[in-house]
Amino acid sequence: MSGKWKVAVLGATGLVGQRFLQLLENHPWFEVSALAASEQSAGKLYRDAANWLLDTPLPERFADLPVRHARPEEVEADFAFSALDSAIAGPIELAFARAGLPVVSNASAHRMDADVPLLLADVNPEHVALLPEQRRLRGFSSGFLVTNPNCSTAGLVTALKPLDAAFGVEAVSVVTLQAASGAGHPGVASMDLLDNVIPFISGEEEKLESEPRKILGQLLDAAIEPAPFTVSAQVNRVPVLDGHLESVSVKLRGKATAADLAQALSEYVSEPQRAALPTAPPRPIVVRPESNRPQTRLDRLASGGMAVVVGRIRPCPILDFRFSLLSHNTIRGAAGAAILNAEWLVKSKFLLPGARSGAKG
Amino acid sequence: MSGKWKVAVLGATGLVGQRFLQLLENHPWFEVSALAASEQSAGKLYRDAANWLLDTPLPERFADLPVRHARPEEVEADFAFSALDSAIAGPIELAFARAGLPVVSNASAHRMDADVPLLLADVNPEHVALLPEQRRLRGFSSGFLVTNPNCSTAGLVTALKPLDAAFGVEAVSVVTLQAASGAGHPGVASMDLLDNVIPFISGEEEKLESEPRKILGQLLDAAIEPAPFTVSAQVNRVPVLDGHLESVSVKLRGKATAADLAQALSEYVSEPQRAALPTAPPRPIVVRPESNRPQTRLDRLASGGMAVVVGRIRPCPILDFRFSLLSHNTIRGAAGAAILNAEWLVKSKFLLPGARSGAKG
Amino acid sequence: MSGKWKVAVLGATGLVGQRFLQLLENHPWFEVSALAASEQSAGKLYRDAANWLLDTPLPERFADLPVRHARPEEVEADFAFSALDSAIAGPIELAFARAGLPVVSNASAHRMDADVPLLLADVNPEHVALLPEQRRLRGFSSGFLVTNPNCSTAGLVTALKPLDAAFGVEAVSVVTLQAASGAGHPGVASMDLLDNVIPFISGEEEKLESEPRKILGQLLDAAIEPAPFTVSAQVNRVPVLDGHLESVSVKLRGKATAADLAQALSEYVSEPQRAALPTAPPRPIVVRPESNRPQTRLDRLASGGMAVVVGRIRPCPILDFRFSLLSHNTIRGAAGAAILNAEWLVKSKFLLPGARSGAKG
Amino acid sequence: MSGKWKVAVLGATGLVGQRFLQLLENHPWFEVSALAASEQSAGKLYRDAANWLLDTPLPERFADLPVRHARPEEVEADFAFSALDSAIAGPIELAFARAGLPVVSNASAHRMDADVPLLLADVNPEHVALLPEQRRLRGFSSGFLVTNPNCSTAGLVTALKPLDAAFGVEAVSVVTLQAASGAGHPGVASMDLLDNVIPFISGEEEKLESEPRKILGQLLDAAIEPAPFTVSAQVNRVPVLDGHLESVSVKLRGKATAADLAQALSEYVSEPQRAALPTAPPRPIVVRPESNRPQTRLDRLASGGMAVVVGRIRPCPILDFRFSLLSHNTIRGAAGAAILNAEWLVKSKFLLPGARSGAKG
Repeated sequence: MSGKWKVAVLGATGLVGQRFLQLLENHPWFEVSALAASEQSAGKLYRDAANWLLDTPLPERFADLPVRHARPEEVEADFAFSALDSAIAGPIELAFARAGLPVVSNASAHRMDADVPLLLADVNPEHVALLPEQRRLRGFSSGFLVTNPNCSTAGLVTALKPLDAAFGVEAVSVVTLQAASGAGHPGVASMDLLDNVIPFISGEEEKLESEPRKILGQLLDAAIEPAPFTVSAQVNRVPVLDGHLESVSVKLRGKATAADLAQALSEYVSEPQRAALPTAPPRPIVVRPESNRPQTRLDRLASGGMAVVVGRIRPCPILDFRFSLLSHNTIRGAAGAAILNAEWLVKSKFLLPGARSGAKG
Repeated sequence: MSGKWKVAVLGATGLVGQRFLQLLENHPWFEVSALAASEQSAGKLYRDAANWLLDTPLPERFADLPVRHARPEEVEADFAFSALDSAIAGPIELAFARAGLPVVSNASAHRMDADVPLLLADVNPEHVALLPEQRRLRGFSSGFLVTNPNCSTAGLVTALKPLDAAFGVEAVSVVTLQAASGAGHPGVASMDLLDNVIPFISGEEEKLESEPRKILGQLLDAAIEPAPFTVSAQVNRVPVLDGHLESVSVKLRGKATAADLAQALSEYVSEPQRAALPTAPPRPIVVRPESNRPQTRLDRLASGGMAVVVGRIRPCPILDFRFSLLSHNTIRGAAGAAILNAEWLVKSKFLLPGARSGAKG
Repeated sequence: MSGKWKVAVLGATGLVGQRFLQLLENHPWFEVSALAASEQSAGKLYRDAANWLLDTPLPERFADLPVRHARPEEVEADFAFSALDSAIAGPIELAFARAGLPVVSNASAHRMDADVPLLLADVNPEHVALLPEQRRLRGFSSGFLVTNPNCSTAGLVTALKPLDAAFGVEAVSVVTLQAASGAGHPGVASMDLLDNVIPFISGEEEKLESEPRKILGQLLDAAIEPAPFTVSAQVNRVPVLDGHLESVSVKLRGKATAADLAQALSEYVSEPQRAALPTAPPRPIVVRPESNRPQTRLDRLASGGMAVVVGRIRPCPILDFRFSLLSHNTIRGAAGAAILNAEWLVKSKFLLPGARSGAKG
Repeated sequence: MSGKWKVAVLGATGLVGQRFLQLLENHPWFEVSALAASEQSAGKLYRDAANWLLDTPLPERFADLPVRHARPEEVEADFAFSALDSAIAGPIELAFARAGLPVVSNASAHRMDADVPLLLADVNPEHVALLPEQRRLRGFSSGFLVTNPNCSTAGLVTALKPLDAAFGVEAVSVVTLQAASGAGHPGVASMDLLDNVIPFISGEEEKLESEPRKILGQLLDAAIEPAPFTVSAQVNRVPVLDGHLESVSVKLRGKATAADLAQALSEYVSEPQRAALPTAPPRPIVVRPESNRPQTRLDRLASGGMAVVVGRIRPCPILDFRFSLLSHNTIRGAAGAAILNAEWLVKSKFLLPGARSGAKG
């Protein structure tokens, strides 16, 4: 144990916080050293503060940890994962980074800040190169901020990456069918979701239309030039627990066949795959040949919830091609993405041992 | 009672057949005189043959009617509604029409036949003018065939009608979130739909891409010239009972604002509204101003399930405008549409008293 | 209109409040004259204050009514229905009664008060005779309090009434499968109810074990002697929208066959049926002969949601008989029960014209 | 690999068959050597014959195995698991046993045969002692039949075992809330289960009322004397995917407190725990102290789906005690139980290496 990184989880009691703990329970590199949450939870034992919602048991090792205030002086760790509510995450994350503690965040507060990488480690790993400029601009010493995208962006942009690389993406029309867990807990009332679809999620379409352009943007002189494509997003909440399904159409700059797309998607690998990072799926994208896949319940746990499953690739009579994709919104779309980001930050040496807590062996 | 039309319901035991009976129970013009179904049901009482699935009770007056074979010689009626399974509907419907009995059908078998109106009475009422040519070509005396569109087409094409009339529709991209009842009973297994979305329904995308062009086509010399727009459809089955929600983008030929679209949609009326037909909704389209409507459970019964509810009209960065629409798949999308068609056929004098059974008073 | 009773609805914005408005929209005797709710809603228009959750539209006539504070001086009415949250209902209802305004309440606050009728008008109509004593004890002039039972009690006690009358009930074991709407809105989170059952509802078992004994108790000298039977209740929340299903076993004092029970249940009628009150179902209990009924979705709207549906009556190897019953929790179990109570209070002359507002014609 | 037992899975394509394959994929003792199914599947590859319904992927090693006819001469194995449909399982299982192949079956066909153990290895492990008599009576050489109980019995009888041992069970009243997967695939139609509860499952109450008495019966002279208690069962199907929740009341012969019951349940272990069999849960019963547990979604995978979770132990005013229990219907209630049975048959030396196929190393 002594050689592991000590990590804090901020916002540990919420649904994404719980996913972090589930995924970190047996992580080979990271060991949870502190749990922090909002004022109302701080001071309790985790088992009392959290309403555990996952279908695997609350790991015993976390049950009796005290929940701390989300303040840098109360948390001992080498770096922090943030699952804080976006409404309060902004200043808290900055406080941690200023205090010298790197923050690998799932919150939206700083995603679109020009100097903050909006990172999916197997999509745009090179964007970590923003960090020296971020430190310079913000006067951070050992701290920094890295974010991962919104849960519905994560699946989409993963599929767009190899298509953009191979054929050039010009326009993307996406309609989402999103799970209840995307709203956290309590989130959507059961009276509002049983036998119902809600064609609206506040702020979601804006994120889907802006985040992919930053993620697939080009890194130029320590700044990101947004990718030159247009996204049109229409979002829906459907009565499923986990897994965001998306019906996508794309217009490409180059010529391609449906088979070309399938090949580009299924063969795609990136740095985390090449480095065999612990949380990296063998392939970021699984292409299913069946006419009725991906399905939310059957495919959301592909590669432990870290793979995006694509199916039904076929021509589109208006844009060029259409397909369906599915990704797990709290794994690839949240906690899993952040953990993979942290692994990549270790591998790319932006996370350095001993920077702060000195506790690593 | 003596003045009412006697109507047969073919395929009366299925889910759409049940909707026909529910909607016809107190109809002011039509009286159910015969129920017919497949071989395995024929000979039983309706209460024993049908597994009643609606949340209003099986009307007592139908419970003890015998179920007849779906053959013209066994059915006494002025005309017939058909809710037959599309796999067997084709020849049976023809047999009834040849025997002199008009058939107002929900089945897909003859929808795309060039001489058969694909009719939504408050969308393309003028297409009934195909009928004289149909009779001439097929040698029908008093019989004829009229069909209504597929359940997912019905909502879409209703919203497209006033947009096409006012601004010219050039392209339509639609993603559907369709209800379980669209597959009939038993249809989709609960193991396949609980906590799941299935991104495929056999044949559905093809119907959505072809039927609207016929319905909004121009009647020229007793033939329909398909409307010159393109439809791209992606369909999904979601775990709701009734109501098809659709996320739509449209490209228009003319200039318009979102307010122009809202006005064109909400002010639209057609012949059935002007004639105050019994099943006609006051307005075919209800436009909701809220950001989170239409919702499947809350809006599917608007105007008794005969109105299409539209919301979230807003610009689209790829095509011109986007909106969500909802329609009840077994009312406006099936039995209700057929009944309204029959009312319009009466009003437009294609259904004439005494043509066959002589039973009208 | 002038001849109708003017009624206020307290707690009008909640789920039960909405049911009151839905059921009162076209009521032949009662006209909603005022809507009142909590501080946060008061002062708004109803359409803005209420998040309308029913699948019939918000009645236009209520949409633009102002929501008033739930204080007697702000409400003009002949009497009031209360759908107030039980946590705050107690003192507010007393204030109205003291101000001379009869309160017909669905809240639990005063249900078990010795001088307050716990009334289902077609189960224990004679309990209205408590009211003179209540007025004497509490010093009410024209005001009074009448309550209806908890949603899960309502169905159970209706079925117990004819069994107790005919055979004597000695013990009742009941396990409930209750709908989401029983918790109001927002109530249970969708993350907690999709693909889940929760075997607990706070306070519910206590109500089920005590309320039936008061309702079926004997009225003696202006007090209720609780019925001498024992109830054991185990409650569960299941992922359905409306309708509480209950698996019941009963031990009887007298001899009977399953057919005797079916007859006693299906033939049962009470004062509201004899008086043909507007909201009274033709029969309080519908007995279904099929082996697989009642079913929640198919039977909850029997007789407009005012009938209790019973099925599967059969011997029990431990107690005497077992059956399943279903009742609509927000109609028979809440707003509908209160409205029927009010109708009975009119019929039995406890509600008298002109008592307060003088507005009745 | 060479040292593992070769096992055939009969009925491999169905839902329980799939669970067998999921649980056997990495089994330390057993290796799947043959898949067999009905006529319509035989001859295909497994990936084409099975409609894989689990949310973990179809194991690659099984995908390309051929599906064989369920006939002993076509299957090479040391013994067979049977997930055959009960309607056809009887003679097929006998044929395998007569051919010398032990059958460890989940089917109901032979469960109540007097000479066939109805076995849950951690409930009544001593019942394997019926097997010599079974072989004598039926003339089996190396073959035999062992069955496990019905899915709803499995959870109940596990909880009854330590209560019966410690206090003596006299009567049991149980109401079930059963999952869709209990009906297999396609099983219950989604139109019948969305927003619905069905208070009936054919044959289920009979099994619940008879099987526990055999399982907890006493082994006397190579026969089972049924346990002297009475079970009353009422069953319901609820819209959840997996996990049967049961509301139970028990009457005991001896005195006890709720704490005594909790202790007896939570401390219970049996032969499989003592022998640390690979599929044995650490404790057959997990007692949860929270007021709102067990919950179907949260607890069904306790100890990999092999533990029964009990909660809400409290006195009953009619019988003696009440509690809720949950068990996974296709793991502890089907495939997992059978695999544990086979492990116990190995451990207790009823399964002997080399008996038939000679293939074990």
